[in-house]
Amino acid sequence: MAHISLPEGVPGISGPMRQYPETARHMNALAETLLRGPSSLSPAEREMIATYVSSQNDCYFCTNCHAATARHLLEDDRAIMEEVLHEPQSANIGDKMKTLLVIAGKVQQGGRRVSDEDVALARSYGADDQAIHDTVLIAAAFCMFNRYVDGLATWAPHDSDVYDQIGERLAQNGYVRSVS
Amino acid sequence: MAHISLPEGVPGISGPMRQYPETARHMNALAETLLRGPSSLSPAEREMIATYVSSQNDCYFCTNCHAATARHLLEDDRAIMEEVLHEPQSANIGDKMKTLLVIAGKVQQGGRRVSDEDVALARSYGADDQAIHDTVLIAAAFCMFNRYVDGLATWAPHDSDVYDQIGERLAQNGYVRSVS
Repeated sequence: MAHISLPEGVPGISGPMRQYPETARHMNALAETLLRGPSSLSPAEREMIATYVSSQNDCYFCTNCHAATARHLLEDDRAIMEEVLHEPQSANIGDKMKTLLVIAGKVQQGGRRVSDEDVALARSYGADDQAIHDTVLIAAAFCMFNRYVDGLATWAPHDSDVYDQIGERLAQNGYVRSVS
Repeated sequence: MAHISLPEGVPGISGPMRQYPETARHMNALAETLLRGPSSLSPAEREMIATYVSSQNDCYFCTNCHAATARHLLEDDRAIMEEVLHEPQSANIGDKMKTLLVIAGKVQQGGRRVSDEDVALARSYGADDQAIHDTVLIAAAFCMFNRYVDGLATWAPHDSDVYDQIGERLAQNGYVRSVS
């Protein structure tokens, strides 16, 4: 049972977001800008980072939602997500993404862990300022979203169809139209 | 030096926020709603939680900014902030705040650590749903803000007058008027 009163049968972050819409509005606007707005990283690449960080934070709901969203965005390459989740450093995602996932993983552990060498390596594979900025902020933001979901002990469905449907909606409509 | 190009001489989170205003807008709106909007916790109590979580995340800039903001809001009780930073469980803040700081500290470590017992204890000292919600989300949000500041290796001044001025501005004007 959740730690506070939430609308029944509403999964994961959607429960507290419906109950507390004033803060939800800004969190969804942040997610939309960060994951769908202009960037040198594709929406699928940004969802990969979100998924990886959520899995490192052991957040079942967010990991499954964002993995499903990434799969819908990746279309024919959707099988990559299993690799990203289980063996990211040998996944078929290119060296730029691998080095950005290393940075994201360090941000998840604590901001100060990101080293000049981590950033230089990502730059050597083509990451620009915007990619580094977005990677750090996506990792940071999912440290918030994951803790919001689990710190309130929200309900997470265990049916992969539910996540596939959420992922399809988020891939098509993004974070503002999907949740309002 | 910061990991990406940022405006020179702009401290902490203000550097990336000026450089990337689209995401900054939503983060500031979230901070304003969460730390200054309607709540069963006072703005000073919410700044205490923000300060405590920032100190647990070892974020020098955020700890000093929010401690200074809390001091300005607490006015004659400003000395409490030393206790909150160094020995929160014997600080003169009342049992409700002590139990909420325990919850905030667990969220900082990971959302799943918050137990039913932690929440029941906070309720027994008068914390309502809104207080528990806001505590969890403030702790979660500062896991984002702290990582944004440190994951990009932003510059933090080491002059207490600078933080006092930032704190005075944030106490008086909040997060939207102070930074725009």
